[in-house]
Amino acid sequence: MELVEICKKAKEASSDAAKLGADDKNRALLAVADALEANAAEIIAANEKDLENGRKNRMPEGLLDRLLLNESRIAQMAEGLRQVASLEDPIGEVLSMKQRPNGLRIGKKRVPIGVVGMIYEARPNVTVDAFGLCFKTGNAVVLKGGSDAIHSNIAIVSVIQETLGRINISKEVVSLIADTSRETAAAFMKMNEYVDVLIPRGGAGLIQTVVNCATIPVIETGTGNCHIFVDESADVMMAVNIIKNAKTQRIGVCNACESLVIHENILEELLPKLTEALWEKSVELRMDEKSLAAAEKMITVNKELLKPAKEEDWGTEYLDYILSVKTVSSLEEAIAHINRYNTGHSEAIVTESYANAEQFLKEVDAACVYVNASTRFSDGFEFGFGAEIGISTQKLHARGPMGLEALTSTKYIIYGNGQVRP
Amino acid sequence: MELVEICKKAKEASSDAAKLGADDKNRALLAVADALEANAAEIIAANEKDLENGRKNRMPEGLLDRLLLNESRIAQMAEGLRQVASLEDPIGEVLSMKQRPNGLRIGKKRVPIGVVGMIYEARPNVTVDAFGLCFKTGNAVVLKGGSDAIHSNIAIVSVIQETLGRINISKEVVSLIADTSRETAAAFMKMNEYVDVLIPRGGAGLIQTVVNCATIPVIETGTGNCHIFVDESADVMMAVNIIKNAKTQRIGVCNACESLVIHENILEELLPKLTEALWEKSVELRMDEKSLAAAEKMITVNKELLKPAKEEDWGTEYLDYILSVKTVSSLEEAIAHINRYNTGHSEAIVTESYANAEQFLKEVDAACVYVNASTRFSDGFEFGFGAEIGISTQKLHARGPMGLEALTSTKYIIYGNGQVRP
Repeated sequence: MELVEICKKAKEASSDAAKLGADDKNRALLAVADALEANAAEIIAANEKDLENGRKNRMPEGLLDRLLLNESRIAQMAEGLRQVASLEDPIGEVLSMKQRPNGLRIGKKRVPIGVVGMIYEARPNVTVDAFGLCFKTGNAVVLKGGSDAIHSNIAIVSVIQETLGRINISKEVVSLIADTSRETAAAFMKMNEYVDVLIPRGGAGLIQTVVNCATIPVIETGTGNCHIFVDESADVMMAVNIIKNAKTQRIGVCNACESLVIHENILEELLPKLTEALWEKSVELRMDEKSLAAAEKMITVNKELLKPAKEEDWGTEYLDYILSVKTVSSLEEAIAHINRYNTGHSEAIVTESYANAEQFLKEVDAACVYVNASTRFSDGFEFGFGAEIGISTQKLHARGPMGLEALTSTKYIIYGNGQVRP
Repeated sequence: MELVEICKKAKEASSDAAKLGADDKNRALLAVADALEANAAEIIAANEKDLENGRKNRMPEGLLDRLLLNESRIAQMAEGLRQVASLEDPIGEVLSMKQRPNGLRIGKKRVPIGVVGMIYEARPNVTVDAFGLCFKTGNAVVLKGGSDAIHSNIAIVSVIQETLGRINISKEVVSLIADTSRETAAAFMKMNEYVDVLIPRGGAGLIQTVVNCATIPVIETGTGNCHIFVDESADVMMAVNIIKNAKTQRIGVCNACESLVIHENILEELLPKLTEALWEKSVELRMDEKSLAAAEKMITVNKELLKPAKEEDWGTEYLDYILSVKTVSSLEEAIAHINRYNTGHSEAIVTESYANAEQFLKEVDAACVYVNASTRFSDGFEFGFGAEIGISTQKLHARGPMGLEALTSTKYIIYGNGQVRP
């Protein structure tokens, strides 16, 4: 189908989706979950084609693994849909209702956004996740996955559409743009007439392209150059635990810690214990002059893991066993450094000082600001949303982990009895 | 100053603005209000230059009037700032705070957006309004007004900046891009590094340009092709009053009614009373076949005001004493027509039917949906917000009349005591 046709049909289907009650939507989600499991063999066969192409194109092992679907992963995707079915439906909630002096009652009601466009890369599970979350919130979704997963995505979307058709739900509430060319992607990003919002998910390059090319409003999800500041009053062992967790528990994720900011008064106490903990995973430290000098003086093993930091280290999201280290002489200097280099994702302070905790929470400009906890908690499930469509690093519409509510809009409903404006 | 330098300094100043308490901000707003009045002569002299240029360039009378500043208009602008000072400060409010099973307490706190970019046309009062609302919400604002009002804008911003400087507030919380070239405007729209949101205010052309060119997130404010649907059960006199008000009380505004949708069963009862009311203002009716035939049969005077509608009439925002008329044979047909042609602004039904009122409220896709009231109420002041920065016709971030809250974002603040992710 032509791109314009796909988007137009999605817009039409979005009115149907908006009218569905929570029971209908939940029944459909459960039916799709069952159908994915029942058609696992077909999906796995399609996925095998993608894997074969990937191997031919010498795709790295890590990416091949992300692309791989097997029975257990398909069962996980189905389970995800069942969880979404179990969440409360946010649509229809009236957030406020006030009476004006002229008797008008003005209410603010939560409604679907309409048509959500998802642009993403190689992971076929995003196809199922995005359908589940958008459908639950009464939206239609148009999916633009990467060419690497195209056979898998076609197979998955066809199972979803067949299932919806069988239970008399407009199958265009989910559609896939099968043409994976750049030109089609660029045209998709300008379909303002039919698509209400674009959510890109993937690497920094993909997100930057969408931000630069789209005329449709974008929710930017993004990279995390997350800092932990160890204040002079910090509990040193708490700091070591938090840093180790935030840096090494999982390295390839946006809420992992990439940079350490240390108060000079705690540097000498912290460094030996910290390096001992980080060197279980051979974490390389890229250090400013002061911290490097201190470390070289005190530390006798693994000296090859101590390196001088360059200016570009402060702005780098390593997604690796590497951590930059900056020494500061005050809380204010720490906040200024973090506000200069952070990507608006997740930032933490470790401190025993009430005043410093509050100042850090107030002045650090990021979606999630922590006192005495690991940045790894920035996640829709950890925040208790029961789902996550991504983590927004912009300030408009949604900021931080996004659950179902981020896929909704509002409208004003006004009850009158003949009022006119004087 | 260079554009980049202006935006960079605004970004720096936004951290200062975010730290100000409500008392400090209110004192500054009152000081600026006084200063505007005290420097009225200087502002009026600058405005005279703009008016002179306008006359030279044969600017239409209506626009010259919008451009004109005199003592009383300056007093109005000052009064606007005093009103904004009297509103509650939304910044710092914690919208929710929940404890997770692991003991983390996760709160959602209202914070400033950062740097707001305003792009607008000839009305210099927007300069003062935008400063007041952005400053009250702890944001810095970068103003890009039109060349027609450049001398007025320079004079106003210089009064604001001097006043802020005198009371030790960073004067770059407000700045004006004095270079009114297209190239500079285009570059401004891509200053993502420093500017968090763009709000265009002006005609459809300006807004479309910003939507198409900007890479910064935009809040689209916009045109209103507003409909009133007269249901078969409507109270006819109520319908006539509401339509007359929505069409003629003020014609050049986005919440004026532009199109009428009438149930065929009430057509003959409605038309004579409606035309009588509308012809006090000589409103021209552009009618579909059915309504035109009925009108021509029943109505004997002013027949020159009855004209056949063309397809393009359904999508036209006249901003004039013109109204299109469409006949339908069901509520569903009315909703489908409205959802096809409306611009997502304000739509109304006049009905005595509970079921039809509820269905209309549910299924019409617009920022403001009314039962038995005039669309002219779509306005920040009428909604009780005490201020208005524009009316959003998009679905992201803010929809409908925007008050102070639309100029805020949120951040998550997380209180831990050493939690790490398992």
